[in-house]
Order: sequence, then C-alpha cells, then structure tokens
Amino acid sequence: MAAGITSRAEDYSRWYTDIILKSEMADYSPVKGCMVIRPNGYAIWENIQKNLDRMIKETGHVNAYFPLFVPESFLRREAEHVEGFAPECAVVTHGGGKELEEPLVVRPTSETIMYEMYSKWIQSYRDLPVMINQWANVVRWEMRTRLFLRTTEFLWQEGHTAHATHEEAIEETLKMLDVYATFAKEYMAFHVIKGVKSQSEKFAGALETYAIESMVQDKKGLQAGTSHDLGQNFAKAFKVQFQSEEGKLEHVWQTSWGVSTRLIGALIMAHSDDQGLVVPPKLAPLQTVVVPIWKAKDKEAGDKVCAVAKELVEKLTKAGISSKADTREGMSPGFKFNDWELKGVPLRIEIGPKDMEKNQVVMVQRIDRTKEFLSMDNVVDHAARLLDEIQNKMYENSKNFLLDNTKELETYDEFKDYIGADSGFVKALWCGDADCEAQVKDETKATIRCLPFEDQGPTGVCIHCGKPADKVAIFGKAY
Amino acid sequence: MAAGITSRAEDYSRWYTDIILKSEMADYSPVKGCMVIRPNGYAIWENIQKNLDRMIKETGHVNAYFPLFVPESFLRREAEHVEGFAPECAVVTHGGGKELEEPLVVRPTSETIMYEMYSKWIQSYRDLPVMINQWANVVRWEMRTRLFLRTTEFLWQEGHTAHATHEEAIEETLKMLDVYATFAKEYMAFHVIKGVKSQSEKFAGALETYAIESMVQDKKGLQAGTSHDLGQNFAKAFKVQFQSEEGKLEHVWQTSWGVSTRLIGALIMAHSDDQGLVVPPKLAPLQTVVVPIWKAKDKEAGDKVCAVAKELVEKLTKAGISSKADTREGMSPGFKFNDWELKGVPLRIEIGPKDMEKNQVVMVQRIDRTKEFLSMDNVVDHAARLLDEIQNKMYENSKNFLLDNTKELETYDEFKDYIGADSGFVKALWCGDADCEAQVKDETKATIRCLPFEDQGPTGVCIHCGKPADKVAIFGKAY
Repeated sequence: MAAGITSRAEDYSRWYTDIILKSEMADYSPVKGCMVIRPNGYAIWENIQKNLDRMIKETGHVNAYFPLFVPESFLRREAEHVEGFAPECAVVTHGGGKELEEPLVVRPTSETIMYEMYSKWIQSYRDLPVMINQWANVVRWEMRTRLFLRTTEFLWQEGHTAHATHEEAIEETLKMLDVYATFAKEYMAFHVIKGVKSQSEKFAGALETYAIESMVQDKKGLQAGTSHDLGQNFAKAFKVQFQSEEGKLEHVWQTSWGVSTRLIGALIMAHSDDQGLVVPPKLAPLQTVVVPIWKAKDKEAGDKVCAVAKELVEKLTKAGISSKADTREGMSPGFKFNDWELKGVPLRIEIGPKDMEKNQVVMVQRIDRTKEFLSMDNVVDHAARLLDEIQNKMYENSKNFLLDNTKELETYDEFKDYIGADSGFVKALWCGDADCEAQVKDETKATIRCLPFEDQGPTGVCIHCGKPADKVAIFGKAY
Repeated sequence: MAAGITSRAEDYSRWYTDIILKSEMADYSPVKGCMVIRPNGYAIWENIQKNLDRMIKETGHVNAYFPLFVPESFLRREAEHVEGFAPECAVVTHGGGKELEEPLVVRPTSETIMYEMYSKWIQSYRDLPVMINQWANVVRWEMRTRLFLRTTEFLWQEGHTAHATHEEAIEETLKMLDVYATFAKEYMAFHVIKGVKSQSEKFAGALETYAIESMVQDKKGLQAGTSHDLGQNFAKAFKVQFQSEEGKLEHVWQTSWGVSTRLIGALIMAHSDDQGLVVPPKLAPLQTVVVPIWKAKDKEAGDKVCAVAKELVEKLTKAGISSKADTREGMSPGFKFNDWELKGVPLRIEIGPKDMEKNQVVMVQRIDRTKEFLSMDNVVDHAARLLDEIQNKMYENSKNFLLDNTKELETYDEFKDYIGADSGFVKALWCGDADCEAQVKDETKATIRCLPFEDQGPTGVCIHCGKPADKVAIFGKAY
C-alpha cells in the first residue's frame, strides 16, 4: 500500500478520497460543496474534452455559449423541469449593489435559457436541425458531496438539438448515446451497458432518458453519460416553432445530452488501485516516465544515464508519446517509482548503467507491474505497443468485471441475498410499475440502472411483485 | 454596403452591432447584460483559446479550475480589491431552498479564492513557483453593456502565479505581457503598444498593471490584455507564506494576467468593414470558401463544376487549410459572395466552366478584394501563400493605422483640438500626478492608455499642468 492511501479492502470510500488528495487531482475548497480541480486532475479533463469535442463535431455539432444566469420564471415554464431542479438551485438576488427585480438562478442545466433563444432563431424548416453543444460550468446545490462524483459546481458539456420530426430527434438521441459509449470504451476503457432509464429515473422534462451505465470496483453502478429525448415538452413551453415544408406551424422535437467531470471520478473508481491512480494511456496527461538509475556517489554515471534518459524522452515526444525524464537528485529510484505509480503514469521506463551496457531498457506497466527488458533501439515502437496493450487490457478488465458481477436472477430472495451481500448488478424481469420499482429501492437500496437495449425480448413475471413482466432491467446500487 | 449593415461613416456604433448580429456572431439574451455567443463567434473564441493556451503552456503554466463562488468575506480581505470589485458583484443569497449563512459572490476575478488555496498548498521554497492558469466565466455587473466589449458575464483566462522573489514575479509579469503582444501581432493581426498603466488605471489590488493597447477604426483605444504585478498584497491578506532556503518564513510575490472574449470585439472593431466581418486567416474558423459558378438551367455543367469544387476542398483540407464548397442551389454567385464576405472568410475561390477550360481558379481576398487568376494545379500553394499575405497585410494595416493616428504633441491646446475632433492617440509628457490625469479626463474624455516602455526617457514639462514631467504617456479615448 502506498504511503497514506487507505486500501480498498479497508475502506473503499476513504481509498477514493485518499487517491484524489494524494495524487493532487483535486482539493476541497472553502466554498461548501465546491471543489478545486488541481492541475493533475484538470489535465485529464482537458484530454476528455479534446477527444470528446472532436467526436461531437464529427457528428455535425457546433459549439456556442449561453448565459450562466437563468431568470427564475424560465425554469417554471416546464412543470416537471422546475419540480426537478428548483430545490437544487443557487439563486442570485442582488447585482451591482441592488436587489434584482427577478431573481436569477445559476444554471443547473441550460434547456430553458437556450430554447428561449432557439424560439427566436428558428422560423422555418430550413433553419433545422439546430445542433449546438456547450462546454460550461453548472451548479446544483448538494447536501452530501463527494469529490468529482457529486459537487455543487461541476464542469460538463451539454448538447441541445432541435429537429423537424420525432424520428430525427430519436435518431440523434441514440447517435449521441453511441458517441458516449464509443468514447467510454475507447478512451475511458469502460465497458458500459446502453439502455433506457425507467420513468422515475429519467431527466426532469424528458420523454425518455437513455444512459450508459458502468460498474466500478465496489460493484456499484455509475452513470457515465445521458441522452434525452425531450419530445416537444420544452418546444411547447418556449414556443419553439417552425413553418414546415407544407406551410404548417409546428413545434420542434428536441434532444439534450451531456457528460461531466463526474467521469473523472468514475475513471478513478473503475481503474485505480491501492498504489494510487491508474489512468488509461489515451487519457493520461503523461503516458511514460523515464527513470534513470544511478548511485548517488557516482556522478559521472549519473550524468551519462540522465543524458540517455533525456534522449529517450525526446524520441518518445517526437513520436507523439507524452513523456518526461525524472532526473531529480537526492531521491531513490524506489521513491520515484512510488511517486509515478501514485500519479498513474501508465508506463515506466527504467534505465541503469547495466541496462546501458546491454543496450536495453526496462518497461514496467502501471496496471499490473508487468516488466519487460527491451532493446533500446526501438524504444518508441515498444512503448507504443505497450500503451496500446495497456489500454486494451484495462478495457477487458472493465468488461470482465461488469459481466462477472452481473447475475441473472429469477426470485426476489436471491435478489436480496445477492444485492445485500456484495452489490453487483442483477438482471431480471420487471413489470414496469413505478411503485414496484420504489419498493425494491426501499427494501434493497438498489435502483433500476437501465433497461438494457440488447437484453429486451423475454417475458415472464416481475422479480419483485410477480405480476406479468415484459421488461428486462438491470438493478444495482449506484453512485 | 451589405444589406442591413449600417456603414461605419454613418454610425460606427450601429455598424459594430449590425456586423455581430448579421454575421450571427452573438445575440442579446433575455438576461440583462448577458449575451449569447453563437457558433460563428464561439468558433473564433475556440481558435483564440487553442493558440493562446498552447503559448501559455509553452511558458511553463498548467491549467486548473477553481470554484465559481467566492465567500463575500474573502473579497474584503484586500482593501483595494474589495473597493474595486464589490460594486460590480452578483450575489448568491440562497442555495438549495435556504438562505445562506454567508452570501457568495459570483467570481468577478479569482485572486481571492485561488490564493486561499495557494496558502494551503505552498509551504516551502520547493513548492515555488506556482504557475496556474484557468479558463473560466466571470461576472461583473454592468449598467451599460456592449456585445463582446462589455458584458455582465464574459469568458476569459486568468493566470495566477506565486514566486519566491519580487524580481521573479516582475519577470513573469513582463513575460506574459510579451506572450499577449506576440499573440496580438501574430494571430489577431494587431499592432499594440506595450506599457505600464497609471496608478489610477491599475487593477484593484496590484502594485503595477502592464497592458497592451490597440487602436480600432474609430481611433479609440482598446486594451487587449493586462498583466499585474500583485506584489505581496494578496499574499499578506491570504497568508500565502513559504519557508525560504535560509529557513525564514516569507510572503510570496504574485502575478495575475488575463485576456477575455473582449478580444473578439476588438477583432471586429479593428478589421471589419461595411461589407461585414473580416477575420485574420490564423483565427478564421473557415479560411477559404470555394464557390462553383454555373447557369441554373445547365445541370450537367453544374454537377461538373461542383465536383471540381469539392475536389479542391478536399485538397485544401488535407493540407490543413479549413475549407468548404458552397454548392447551394437556387442562389446566385453574387448572393453567395456577399454572404461569405459578411461572414469574413479570408479567401474566396471561384470556379466556373470557363475557368475549368483554362485549368484556372479565381482567388479573391476578403480584405481588399484583390483578385488573381491562378492555375488549378497548385491551388493549395496559392491559397497558403495568399492566406499568409492577408495575415501580414492585416497586421501592416493595423500598425500603420495606429502610427498614423498617434500624434506627438507639446501643448494642451493642440491636445484638445486633436482629441476633440477625431480621437486618435496623443503621445505627450506627463507629470505623473493623478489629479492632473483626472482633469485631462474630465476636460477631454481622454485617459492615459499606458506609459509605453519604448518611449520613456525624455523629460520636460507636463502637457496639461506645465509642471516638470519625466513620463511619456499615451492619451486617448477608449472602449
């Protein structure tokens, strides 16, 4: 166990917080519920942004920026929406030294302020579709917070589109869910379940909410992205109308979708270990660290091996592999190894005087400490290959973990035993009734994570109430 | 004059607003003082961010994110700072349905909340320097707003560093001023004057504020970036202390520096014309547009020329020149030309059936409509060369304009005549007295833009009060 990090077995929750604080990913702030994202954490967010932003643009969206403040009255225009968000709002009552005529809410999400503008911009079917994304901060007042996973302020992207038909809007909703699933798999190294939320778990104001659900190491679920089919609910509340090709005035069909800095919490919970952070190579700010090894008293050998380390770093950097040489003096190699393991650098390259003689380096994978002696001549090829290997291994681990800890069950007794002892997901038939769902939650703390697309079909009886059931649900405890 | 755009000669202020609204760069929002940055405007901000962020990182800084909210008491800890910012604050008094014990201010700038954290993170000289930058939204309540130039909420970056010595802090302050000046020149195509602000114009809480000042087309000044030497003012207020190498407990020396979405307003005011937006190629979201020309009735010719246009776009895009083919039907070439001129695409490439016969294209520069017939074979080389040429021409124009409209004067009568008639900058000797500076402002509306580094040296008498003077100041009206 690394110094100062509680082990997962001892206290999973403490372990999580220790990792974040010790690796300097984030810190508590003096503002209740708000955190500071420190450079080590923010660099991961920048990598998430860079890659996801590219995918969002490749699917035809453009970025824009809307006001932080939302007039309180806007929130009230959509009944379900205000009910969902009003209790979580931060409210500005004074500005420029005066009390405001109408209080302003700090955006908890931007549907209302954006669609007020859409109603101005959209006149004709020729103006559709509108496909806008925004990277922004949002505020939702939280009583019980947890670094990254639940904070009063967080960073996110929120996509908001408007279409001429419901079919097109549904297609968009599902397309963006796919983008999130692809991003989760290829960058986050997350295996996720794609599905639709139950009505009780959907977004306030949506017809349907689709989500990707992941599982972290304590076998709890963690929602890693949502995509909402908003129907015409907001279009009606904000009069977002267009003249159709046939000359009729119609309401647009809308979608919204988002992921947030919560993903960083998910990343930590899914992949890290008792030694510290483990980051997938594709999101790691620093992918390789080269640690030269020499005896403190032998300055000449030190200079030599440090020079070679720097050369290697230059080669790696040139090849697009982010890299750094740790030539700090007065620290033992062991101390450095621990330090970089704590910070989650995927691949460590060690080189000592004996390695130099043999024209070799040692490459150690952060994830499982696999160690290989490799020729120095093609260090870039080796590093690139291992980084790919690590990325894939991390995804496979995530997939196996989720599959191994998802049980298909038929009786409620089995369900309670399984969920009670060790969390995990239960795949089971459900009647579709919200009260039945609420009772399960009361009795077991498990909620319906989603109704997975790929598992629908079977019919039978509900695992809880025994009534006829035609929905397959994933139940689990969740963050 | 493009349809719907007031000419500069008629009404400069209306012209500015027309450009922004017609080219869909931004729009007014229903929240007083706040604007919506629409995709066409936001794409320019993304290009500013991308390039400036790289330059900020290359000079050794890392990004992070601090809370949006600042406890009101924090603001009060530095006397000048609270005096400067308190009247402009938006105040959150309620959160989660309850009145807060202590009101929270929406950050007008982040010195206080960041340095509270610095005081926790910095213990020893080994922790220094701290060099953090943040991209964020800030709020300063404004009574009289103007799109991009002065809005209640705006986007910016704010760098905040802490150092062991004042010398190092000053070096950092000036280094970042240079980064801004380089960015202004190479990307914005702005000629700027680097200098120090007078004490009345400095940042609330700083020892000195350095700035780059530009001039826009109505000959007013526009501050395009500031860098502050904060001394130990905030370090003392927030107890940011470190143990020096000699074991003494000392306060750190700090700097902060920032540029904002105001730059987009400056860009428009400096370069655009009565036909619409003019954007420097290095910041243009779309650098070239290829407009195929054909007769509506000749569908076959249309298909052919559109296919060639798309091929050209493919070649240009591959070479890293952002490009688009305008193959819209039912619109005349003239309409398309106007549309792209309005939106500020730096280079238009026209191609018609006759051009195809001659294996040529027509390249038209947005900035001055210079037109060239060029071989289709090396369209990429030609476009790259012309984009460079345009970028340089825009900078030369900016430089000549500022120099031509800066008068070195010796008497206050000349000063009043010059400033009164047509704005422009006056370079003159000033005694250094704040009251004298205030009187000039009262009498002429001109303020001291800065004391330019490169002009200091001469001594004589103050242009206003006639007392001995050893400072050379740039006076001007400003945004």
